[in-house]
Amino acid sequence: MTWSVIATWKFSIDGVKAAGKLIEDGGKSLDAVELVARYVEDDPSVDSVGYGGIPNIEGEVELDAAIMNGEDLSIGVVMGVKGYKNPISIARKVLTDSPHNILIGQGAEEFAARIGFEKAILLTDESIKKWLERKKQLATSSKENKGCNKENCDIYGHDTVGIVALDIFKNMACATSTSGIAMKQRGRVGDSPLVGSGFYVDNYIGGAAATGLGEDIMKGCICFYAVQLMGEGYSPQEAAELAVKKIHYRLFEKNGKVGNIAIVCADNKGNFGGAANHEGFEYAAASDKTLPAIYKVKSVV
Amino acid sequence: MTWSVIATWKFSIDGVKAAGKLIEDGGKSLDAVELVARYVEDDPSVDSVGYGGIPNIEGEVELDAAIMNGEDLSIGVVMGVKGYKNPISIARKVLTDSPHNILIGQGAEEFAARIGFEKAILLTDESIKKWLERKKQLATSSKENKGCNKENCDIYGHDTVGIVALDIFKNMACATSTSGIAMKQRGRVGDSPLVGSGFYVDNYIGGAAATGLGEDIMKGCICFYAVQLMGEGYSPQEAAELAVKKIHYRLFEKNGKVGNIAIVCADNKGNFGGAANHEGFEYAAASDKTLPAIYKVKSVV
Repeated sequence: MTWSVIATWKFSIDGVKAAGKLIEDGGKSLDAVELVARYVEDDPSVDSVGYGGIPNIEGEVELDAAIMNGEDLSIGVVMGVKGYKNPISIARKVLTDSPHNILIGQGAEEFAARIGFEKAILLTDESIKKWLERKKQLATSSKENKGCNKENCDIYGHDTVGIVALDIFKNMACATSTSGIAMKQRGRVGDSPLVGSGFYVDNYIGGAAATGLGEDIMKGCICFYAVQLMGEGYSPQEAAELAVKKIHYRLFEKNGKVGNIAIVCADNKGNFGGAANHEGFEYAAASDKTLPAIYKVKSVV
Repeated sequence: MTWSVIATWKFSIDGVKAAGKLIEDGGKSLDAVELVARYVEDDPSVDSVGYGGIPNIEGEVELDAAIMNGEDLSIGVVMGVKGYKNPISIARKVLTDSPHNILIGQGAEEFAARIGFEKAILLTDESIKKWLERKKQLATSSKENKGCNKENCDIYGHDTVGIVALDIFKNMACATSTSGIAMKQRGRVGDSPLVGSGFYVDNYIGGAAATGLGEDIMKGCICFYAVQLMGEGYSPQEAAELAVKKIHYRLFEKNGKVGNIAIVCADNKGNFGGAANHEGFEYAAASDKTLPAIYKVKSVV
């Protein structure tokens, strides 16, 4: 009974444990990835996802989330959702109940209201405090005080939770959830809710999820590419490393700099791996062969 | 002096002629793709793009547009923009002036206002008439009258303009612009503004742009995939056909049905081609070797 759950960052470990248990008990991969995302969304100490996420420059918490089913490639995405605590579950409902794959902003919020999601306040004492500090810093560093600008974007706080799971029925799923870059301009969206860039999964091969500077990650459709590499026979670890290197060097050559890029990959045989173009990336994983653990990743560039 | 411009649908022919002239005179590929998109956005007879586009179920014209530079892979995207006539030009400004790649809804509109774009009314007598007719049809066919539903989505009016251009400086660019599915739910977004799905371009290889049912197109990241195929040595025509077939059969196998999918491709040597999984697709193209013309495409499935 082969299975696996892998998710970006150390903060996913409790969710991964719970999802592993769910899968062992016969749960579905779609439920497993949603569960991990909800764990992180509900954790106020994670300031880059869901409740407690650092607001945009206007002081609003705008959330993006996506979920994909590796069986039929069906997709559910919301972008720029305000006032709801679990965007991943709204995205799941988009996947199952909407004729569309993607709903943004007001449309996504109306959809959530229609199907009975409850409104919530996402700001915490801590996130308000961080926002006020940043606001002060930006006011002294920028005349316009319009949030990050072209030259000096604040790329802190982009630690998206991204999850890939394989269940014992050989079905795979993946999901992402994020509040995006701290102090982002209103309406900014990164790679997390973009299929192929922030996430991708296909039962026939495997799945991937990314975290880092979305503005750079999306230039290489890194998750779709990593899944293709696994389809060509590369292991998840090799695919993760090759995918990160490919986009990193393509961008570095032209621009002389690249934002942080990290990815986790899993195939449909229970293997998994991760890679990053910077030090400090960690992921949490569990499988039928490995106990829940946190893996430290060395930079591949 | 090799160059080319290729764009989806017959309605692009005037824009393609103008863009070809611009490139022949030493203009840039980025300007050329923006020009073609603006031609189509400004044409009230095109009911699926810009001015005159059929509104969403709420009676609002919501526009999506994207532009990508093949030189440094920089991207500018707007989604769900209301009240502006040329979303492609807002997207262009996102590419050049914003620290972000993607702005959605209110955030995109505020960005447009800040940089001086003028508000416009996008409804026309004709689009209002079509909306009223559809509204009536939906009222009789659906109790809830909530627009298209999971089983019976109205997939008319998804003729996105997508453009790829190569200039005489060997730079490539691509762009898309659409008002999306007619009678869509508020906030619905398709493949057009999604990098890798609706568009992709890389100077080292070539570019691609898609049109059709975005909900299905995005499941295969068709444009990124087609560009990869060209990178492996397939001609634009072969890459277009293979990319359409791959996603079509993957979806057909599982779901027994697939929405309309069409793609245009161009490489960095002046060659171009197009393919679709249905009859009736046409594209407009011009190059240093071929006069501006409309090409009819046979279904590859």
